[in-house]
Amino acid sequence: MAKNAFYAQSGGVTSVINASACGVIETARKHPDKIGKVLAGRNGIIGALTEDLIDTSAESDADIHALRHTPSGAFGSCRFKLKDLEKNKREYDRLIEVFKAHDIGYFFYNGGGDSADTCYKVSQLSEKMGYPVQAIHVPKTVDNDLPITDTCPGFGSVAKYIAVSTREASYDVRSMSRTSTKIFVLEVMGRHAGWIAAAGGLAADKNNDIPVLILFPEIDFDQERFMAKVKAMVDKYDYCSIVVSEGAKYANGHFLAEQGTRDAFGHAQLGGAAPVVANMVKEALGYKFHWAVADYLQRAARHIASGTDVEQAYAVGKAAVEFALQGHNSIMPAIVRTSSNPYKWEIGEAPLSKVANVEKMMPREFITEDGFGITDACREYLVPLIQGEEYPPFENGMPKYVTLKNTAVPKRLPEFKL
Amino acid sequence: MAKNAFYAQSGGVTSVINASACGVIETARKHPDKIGKVLAGRNGIIGALTEDLIDTSAESDADIHALRHTPSGAFGSCRFKLKDLEKNKREYDRLIEVFKAHDIGYFFYNGGGDSADTCYKVSQLSEKMGYPVQAIHVPKTVDNDLPITDTCPGFGSVAKYIAVSTREASYDVRSMSRTSTKIFVLEVMGRHAGWIAAAGGLAADKNNDIPVLILFPEIDFDQERFMAKVKAMVDKYDYCSIVVSEGAKYANGHFLAEQGTRDAFGHAQLGGAAPVVANMVKEALGYKFHWAVADYLQRAARHIASGTDVEQAYAVGKAAVEFALQGHNSIMPAIVRTSSNPYKWEIGEAPLSKVANVEKMMPREFITEDGFGITDACREYLVPLIQGEEYPPFENGMPKYVTLKNTAVPKRLPEFKL
Repeated sequence: MAKNAFYAQSGGVTSVINASACGVIETARKHPDKIGKVLAGRNGIIGALTEDLIDTSAESDADIHALRHTPSGAFGSCRFKLKDLEKNKREYDRLIEVFKAHDIGYFFYNGGGDSADTCYKVSQLSEKMGYPVQAIHVPKTVDNDLPITDTCPGFGSVAKYIAVSTREASYDVRSMSRTSTKIFVLEVMGRHAGWIAAAGGLAADKNNDIPVLILFPEIDFDQERFMAKVKAMVDKYDYCSIVVSEGAKYANGHFLAEQGTRDAFGHAQLGGAAPVVANMVKEALGYKFHWAVADYLQRAARHIASGTDVEQAYAVGKAAVEFALQGHNSIMPAIVRTSSNPYKWEIGEAPLSKVANVEKMMPREFITEDGFGITDACREYLVPLIQGEEYPPFENGMPKYVTLKNTAVPKRLPEFKL
Repeated sequence: MAKNAFYAQSGGVTSVINASACGVIETARKHPDKIGKVLAGRNGIIGALTEDLIDTSAESDADIHALRHTPSGAFGSCRFKLKDLEKNKREYDRLIEVFKAHDIGYFFYNGGGDSADTCYKVSQLSEKMGYPVQAIHVPKTVDNDLPITDTCPGFGSVAKYIAVSTREASYDVRSMSRTSTKIFVLEVMGRHAGWIAAAGGLAADKNNDIPVLILFPEIDFDQERFMAKVKAMVDKYDYCSIVVSEGAKYANGHFLAEQGTRDAFGHAQLGGAAPVVANMVKEALGYKFHWAVADYLQRAARHIASGTDVEQAYAVGKAAVEFALQGHNSIMPAIVRTSSNPYKWEIGEAPLSKVANVEKMMPREFITEDGFGITDACREYLVPLIQGEEYPPFENGMPKYVTLKNTAVPKRLPEFKL
């Protein structure tokens, strides 16, 4: 008898997380004998706890297919972490109650490190609480910090966006440098790991001699050394591009973005690292600057997604369902790199016990000795991940993204307070 | 006897100004009997004054053609305005000296309002100083504020970038709004005119019910009315996107971006309008926010250029040469809209005396009565300008832009101090 599947999206969304949703749902639809309906949690695990479920069987094949090219989380996401079973058994009891009420035997959770922890906890329901459920984690995070997998779906597209944008803006500032702007600063995501910042280094290559300095969260910020480097670049090129991670910090652990800035009323002012770095350069060296903060634009930019990333995002969704059908529990499909040049990869499996709450940082050998650039080894790692363009369809000048109907499944249980 | 042509790029560069350069040079190359070499000014008019000329005949046809898809100013730009003839005859004498030394009979200047003024002044050299030169202005500005022409090459691509980015980021924040971000603020260019900000309104359409509020420089900022509007949007949609022009200001003329903010050392802090608006909303309504400042990314983003814009940028470059060959002086090719739906346009001509130093602002009827959105009339105006995608070629995951050799023409004159 076919059980229903639960699928939900968790944490910060990406331009390709819906491609994973597409992979899960399209694959499930091919196995009606084993999987009944895919019920999506509205806003992640919160949808399960509050019995706020979406009946994806009400969506047409065409709309589900359009998820492949639609950025963001089609079912809503959440920032919510399940507590340990010992500390909050109530939540686990509720999950089982909801799963039972809706005949759910498969649990697919699409997210990063924190979400892998949630998925891991659910995967233990069978063993610890006697409810038979197979929980498979579908990897996603622009931070690229999940262990074991070669990369995390979502990252390749952000990397491509940052590499392309840095190249384009560098051409711009190069044009302006004679009488105007000499410094362009781009702030990128990645509070703990510098993977996204590293992608800015791809703006330069053998045909594009562009001076790019990168401020990684992994390298303590040394203002004097940085200024010397900026000056050397401007002396040589007449301009310089700087990619700064939002997580860049001083040796004392303070973020560059926290400058104790106060507005006219004395309120603490939230700023970004980019204006701080730009003003610092202006003050030390006098160069005219421009700065940008990409923020959500970088992770939502489906229009310039990496074809490789889209393909991998779909593949991990598909593999999650296939693993479940093979009887697996408590694993995550992982991308296994078998060759860099040409890039070849296949899907492997990673046990959730080894994925949950583990962060993969940039290896030191991916950062140049001076701390401001990427090495050839890093380039060899990154370049395959941004290969290929898979443009969304356009209509009337704009990308045509799908908004699903998201029909609610009728509730069968009393309300549950989070 | 064929005279040489001078071509230069001026003011802020765009993702399609090189498409105009391509139009000028490719068209000139078709008329070797009338136009000798196209000599480009390195860094705009400064290249003419300092006799820093680039021999574009040293570039291959393929490289010139690649300018069509390469953002930025291939020959360098400048922010430099010629003074009036009466105030600085020395500069005009020098221009004539350089033009004579390099046999220049055609002057093509590619820029916005200030540059049109420079071009206008050069166009009067024949009449006022007896040197025969035909000066044609090639329109370019992301600000879209040149008069007479339907639009300014460069604007359509920025508009497309802002519309696409706002749609993508709105999908993102919609996904996150249940437990996290409810407000996304995007700061865009346009200090005097709200054309670029208006493009954010295109994120929403009949298939994309997205709440977008726009802060135009043309409408005095009223904090109370704005907060009421934000709250109404969040009450209805659970999230809201805000597009703020860098030129948004209070009734007293102060920019939102100037908040008298000081850093920990008491230094005045340059900020952006986006963080100011975001913090203001947080303080008044408590909503979690994200903000982005697109800055150079928006005008450099050739990867998402408007096909219409690329075509028009090329067409005005081509027309400039054709007008010159027809014996014209002191004009600018203008885009004339003959129909909106379907969009039809042709090239007309505008006298420089009516272009120089005139700014075209957003008509009030393009802004909704409440001041926070765009009207159907505005939409009818904007939509044609973002039509079509003309992607650059990609190689190894990255757009393949050309960097010209930019071979200097040997100098024949003594040095000139600016």
